[in-house]
Amino acid sequence: MQISSGVPGFDGLVDGGFPAERLYVVSGPPGSGKTTFCSQFAANGAKNGEDVLYVSMHETKEGIREDMGSYEFGFDRALDTDRVTFLDSFSSDGRRFFGLPGERRDSSGVTNRLTGFINSRDIDRVVFDSTMLLRFLLDDGEDTMIQLLSSLKRCSATTLLISEMTDPSAYSEEHYLAHGVVFLHNYLEDDGMRRGIQVLKMRGTGIDTDIQDVEFTDEGLHVGSAATLTH
Amino acid sequence: MQISSGVPGFDGLVDGGFPAERLYVVSGPPGSGKTTFCSQFAANGAKNGEDVLYVSMHETKEGIREDMGSYEFGFDRALDTDRVTFLDSFSSDGRRFFGLPGERRDSSGVTNRLTGFINSRDIDRVVFDSTMLLRFLLDDGEDTMIQLLSSLKRCSATTLLISEMTDPSAYSEEHYLAHGVVFLHNYLEDDGMRRGIQVLKMRGTGIDTDIQDVEFTDEGLHVGSAATLTH
Amino acid sequence: MQISSGVPGFDGLVDGGFPAERLYVVSGPPGSGKTTFCSQFAANGAKNGEDVLYVSMHETKEGIREDMGSYEFGFDRALDTDRVTFLDSFSSDGRRFFGLPGERRDSSGVTNRLTGFINSRDIDRVVFDSTMLLRFLLDDGEDTMIQLLSSLKRCSATTLLISEMTDPSAYSEEHYLAHGVVFLHNYLEDDGMRRGIQVLKMRGTGIDTDIQDVEFTDEGLHVGSAATLTH
Amino acid sequence: MQISSGVPGFDGLVDGGFPAERLYVVSGPPGSGKTTFCSQFAANGAKNGEDVLYVSMHETKEGIREDMGSYEFGFDRALDTDRVTFLDSFSSDGRRFFGLPGERRDSSGVTNRLTGFINSRDIDRVVFDSTMLLRFLLDDGEDTMIQLLSSLKRCSATTLLISEMTDPSAYSEEHYLAHGVVFLHNYLEDDGMRRGIQVLKMRGTGIDTDIQDVEFTDEGLHVGSAATLTH
Amino acid sequence: MQISSGVPGFDGLVDGGFPAERLYVVSGPPGSGKTTFCSQFAANGAKNGEDVLYVSMHETKEGIREDMGSYEFGFDRALDTDRVTFLDSFSSDGRRFFGLPGERRDSSGVTNRLTGFINSRDIDRVVFDSTMLLRFLLDDGEDTMIQLLSSLKRCSATTLLISEMTDPSAYSEEHYLAHGVVFLHNYLEDDGMRRGIQVLKMRGTGIDTDIQDVEFTDEGLHVGSAATLTH
Amino acid sequence: MQISSGVPGFDGLVDGGFPAERLYVVSGPPGSGKTTFCSQFAANGAKNGEDVLYVSMHETKEGIREDMGSYEFGFDRALDTDRVTFLDSFSSDGRRFFGLPGERRDSSGVTNRLTGFINSRDIDRVVFDSTMLLRFLLDDGEDTMIQLLSSLKRCSATTLLISEMTDPSAYSEEHYLAHGVVFLHNYLEDDGMRRGIQVLKMRGTGIDTDIQDVEFTDEGLHVGSAATLTH
Repeated sequence: MQISSGVPGFDGLVDGGFPAERLYVVSGPPGSGKTTFCSQFAANGAKNGEDVLYVSMHETKEGIREDMGSYEFGFDRALDTDRVTFLDSFSSDGRRFFGLPGERRDSSGVTNRLTGFINSRDIDRVVFDSTMLLRFLLDDGEDTMIQLLSSLKRCSATTLLISEMTDPSAYSEEHYLAHGVVFLHNYLEDDGMRRGIQVLKMRGTGIDTDIQDVEFTDEGLHVGSAATLTH
Repeated sequence: MQISSGVPGFDGLVDGGFPAERLYVVSGPPGSGKTTFCSQFAANGAKNGEDVLYVSMHETKEGIREDMGSYEFGFDRALDTDRVTFLDSFSSDGRRFFGLPGERRDSSGVTNRLTGFINSRDIDRVVFDSTMLLRFLLDDGEDTMIQLLSSLKRCSATTLLISEMTDPSAYSEEHYLAHGVVFLHNYLEDDGMRRGIQVLKMRGTGIDTDIQDVEFTDEGLHVGSAATLTH
Repeated sequence: MQISSGVPGFDGLVDGGFPAERLYVVSGPPGSGKTTFCSQFAANGAKNGEDVLYVSMHETKEGIREDMGSYEFGFDRALDTDRVTFLDSFSSDGRRFFGLPGERRDSSGVTNRLTGFINSRDIDRVVFDSTMLLRFLLDDGEDTMIQLLSSLKRCSATTLLISEMTDPSAYSEEHYLAHGVVFLHNYLEDDGMRRGIQVLKMRGTGIDTDIQDVEFTDEGLHVGSAATLTH
Repeated sequence: MQISSGVPGFDGLVDGGFPAERLYVVSGPPGSGKTTFCSQFAANGAKNGEDVLYVSMHETKEGIREDMGSYEFGFDRALDTDRVTFLDSFSSDGRRFFGLPGERRDSSGVTNRLTGFINSRDIDRVVFDSTMLLRFLLDDGEDTMIQLLSSLKRCSATTLLISEMTDPSAYSEEHYLAHGVVFLHNYLEDDGMRRGIQVLKMRGTGIDTDIQDVEFTDEGLHVGSAATLTH
Repeated sequence: MQISSGVPGFDGLVDGGFPAERLYVVSGPPGSGKTTFCSQFAANGAKNGEDVLYVSMHETKEGIREDMGSYEFGFDRALDTDRVTFLDSFSSDGRRFFGLPGERRDSSGVTNRLTGFINSRDIDRVVFDSTMLLRFLLDDGEDTMIQLLSSLKRCSATTLLISEMTDPSAYSEEHYLAHGVVFLHNYLEDDGMRRGIQVLKMRGTGIDTDIQDVEFTDEGLHVGSAATLTH
Repeated sequence: MQISSGVPGFDGLVDGGFPAERLYVVSGPPGSGKTTFCSQFAANGAKNGEDVLYVSMHETKEGIREDMGSYEFGFDRALDTDRVTFLDSFSSDGRRFFGLPGERRDSSGVTNRLTGFINSRDIDRVVFDSTMLLRFLLDDGEDTMIQLLSSLKRCSATTLLISEMTDPSAYSEEHYLAHGVVFLHNYLEDDGMRRGIQVLKMRGTGIDTDIQDVEFTDEGLHVGSAATLTH
């Protein structure tokens, strides 16, 4: 089964949408649109009546509502429904869930609580923002990260994991572990930034690996030329 | 709400000013103008009747007054008003606040005292100069830095954090954690230095990501051609 | 003795097939086709009546069946026969075999159990997916990896070991230890990805070391121009 | 107040001289002229009746006298007057001052003795040759270096600190901490070395950041074309 | 005294052959021909009635016999004579000699047993395959490697040491310690691999340091154009 | 006072010879001629009736005699006179002097014995081959190296220290500590090696910093065109 990314123009690059119940990594430098991409994905799920878990270690619920409220894809409204569970890792709820950072963290406990939550609530879509902060919450060493991601791959939700990454060829373990990798480009060219999106990997489906133009529009990220898109 | 940067020509790059109550990183190599940019930001706040906290681990109050006194934006005068609290981390006041370096530092204490001060005094603008010295004051490890910055993001002040950084693509955790990143360029070109400024990231607002010319003028940093600017 | 890779067009690059009972490394960046190559190799063995061990630390049996079911080389069907033993390192069987990660790992025990299994069952072909996860299962340090691979080289099975590797000249110890190295290229060229395959090393046989075009077709990876291939 | 560098042609690059009572870093590869630059600075101070402290961890008093005696700027003669205190860190005086390396070093003691000496003797100019050897004398870790330099910045002397550095963009903490950075270039060009000098940073004054030609003449380093200089 | 390398076309590059009783390093990336070069060297010694010790941490005696049996230089036959002692470090003999890896290694014991064996048996030629596995057998740290190689240099045998190395300018200590360094190139050029051989260093004799073409022929590696060679 | 290097064509690059009683570093990649340069320096001293100490951690006395015997500058004969003390660090004499590696090394003891030997015997020229092996003999950490070199700089001998170094801009502490640095180039150019020599640094004397051609001739290294040299 394929599910829509919610990003206009993207699904065509992956044969109709993300193969469901798998783990994908969304990577790119600061300001490249990773959070917007994932918010569109989450909003799309809520719109379809799916249950969404959005775990942010970067933003409060209010912050993300405000940021995404400037777009028309409706994540701000979805955040106020029961469809979306927003977990801010630095809120008191977040601290109960993950343990207070620097105090009593139990990495297999984090893995168990997280997969338990996803499975028991029948969550359909998960967004994790981000690996840098996952590393902060988990013990040092890549082993706990491998264990957590391997467990998430075995859950029945479709997960997007934001991974901070500057160089599209400096892969980390999450890029090898994921079923697919989407890279958001943001590179200097003739004194300006050019934005692009590229599917580097996608298990079990044909993909278009070319770099596509992407731009920020009123409806969020938009792959390909806006002029030729019908909404 | 957007607030002015106080840097002529800059606000137009970020849709009218910095979205308020958020955390921004100002990065660049030595001599690129980071401290001047932030002093203009602080002076602008004071001029508008806002309360400003300027934490320097680089300069004494006298040193910064002298350096900025050669410009006309008035940070030297603002430093003598009640609007601006200047905290020199190596002064006796600073040592009381942060603890003596190398002796008894308590990183969650630093986070708590700092956010407590900002919240209790209703500080509107904060400048931190700089991450290198924050790292010096805090425990080693990136965890305490992530914790401090995450707490600052939850304060109601607008914060500029100076981050030493040479290569505009060698991002550190503060660039991913911040709501926005401004990079000051200072690169060798045909035997001379060319100065530039670039907005790499800005959550929740449209931005112009082109590199803009910037120069030092009598009124401080000045984005774009001085000839076409009206004061 | 040479055995077929099961990948159309590949055997001609290595003088008719892989010299049997040896260890080969298959390397490349995420999305370059390493798992598909190895699945074709495994399916080919099963089709010939050979016994195959497929050890995955990345996929469940269901996941790999689904991914490879979109191709016509029949690995999905082979997985349901007695010819193929699929060992998912994170399943309960896998945990019994390798020990629970982070709990009680005994690296010479892993080496012994694995070579014991291969030898006692007269396994003909082995696929290991991958070195990153082997490193996760084994103790840190390259010594246990060298010990395991040296033991595998002494087994009478033909083994393909997937090794995550981005840069075709950043060799790790497995590339020096293996009897042969196959590299899958996936490089950016004029805004698109170009796929290639290259035999970097092959002991005891003549090889063609040129980079060959490779593409994903209905029958899996396909070396050289599909137009000139007869099925 | 600006004070002359003592290097013909240099003061014009920094608006008339170094702003007094501040800390400057002089960087460059081996053989680029760092010690000669600083000796000219020290000799100029002595000539003006200022008190100079020259701390060398590289040279004996005799060695520097001999090296600089081949130039006409008079540092050899100044070394024999009361104006200049030369501290050789490996002499018995030096060892008393800094503690025997490897035996009993007390980094805050070094900071205190050094700033105490500068302040009690009303030293006007200080030369430190160099950071590599400061690191040798101080405890490992960048913290003690930051503490020492921050204390020096608060002294009323004008200090030049020689910092070994090959690549003009591989900045260390001293480049960020200093009020100014002067870089001496020494780069290979068409089979020969080209020498240059560049002011990368200078707080509180306008600067010319172009790379200037520099050459060794009888009067020491000489910025710009010798032909057009009047002595 | 010079001794032949056994590689057609090579001796002319080093003034007639390797100066005897010295240590040489043979370096290059995977698949560049290091083992074939050294097997030719060993076979040439056996053919001349010399005593040869071949220590492999990569291959069994059967493996190397099979690999080299496809060439005509006769190392497969030499392996069955008394002239050649083949020591497989992972065989039971090898384990007795070197100690079981990971259990009881005694690096000066390895050095003593090895030089004792070479001296007491009057071994004329030694091949070591390779430094990666020497490092595996010895304690960590470069000290034991330096000690072993320095001892080997004092033996009266001529030794070839295979050293894994990708970049011809990323030298390790063995390249500085050896009396000579031979580099086998294997670099990508216009979508294919080009092979070359180069003598980087050779104490006490004139050398031709140009990169020479090298190819795999029926008689093994062959330096220069095969067409102009007389066998 | 300047003393001759003994290398035809070199003294002219450093204003007539090396300034006496100082420390120089000779650097370059394997095979670039560092040992030959230093042997010519030592032979020149012996010829002039000076006392020479040659410390080699690479070669036996017999080995260096044999290597240098192929040249006409007479170091082989000088080695048999009382003028030259050859200390092989791995001989029994060497071990008594430096302590057995890995057993009981006392780095300040090494410094004291070495400078004591040089001073008590009035040694005029010292050659150290090389820093890699000095590091092996001394404790880890750069501190003991700095201490030893600083002590050598205070001796009345002229010392050449061979320093392994591949990249002429990757300086180590010895390049900053030395009074001068000579670099021997050995770089790939149009499929061949080109040799060159360059004086990167020389305190207290004018130098020619251009890269000069250098070649191996019967009389050893020879700077500049052999044709135009008169012996």
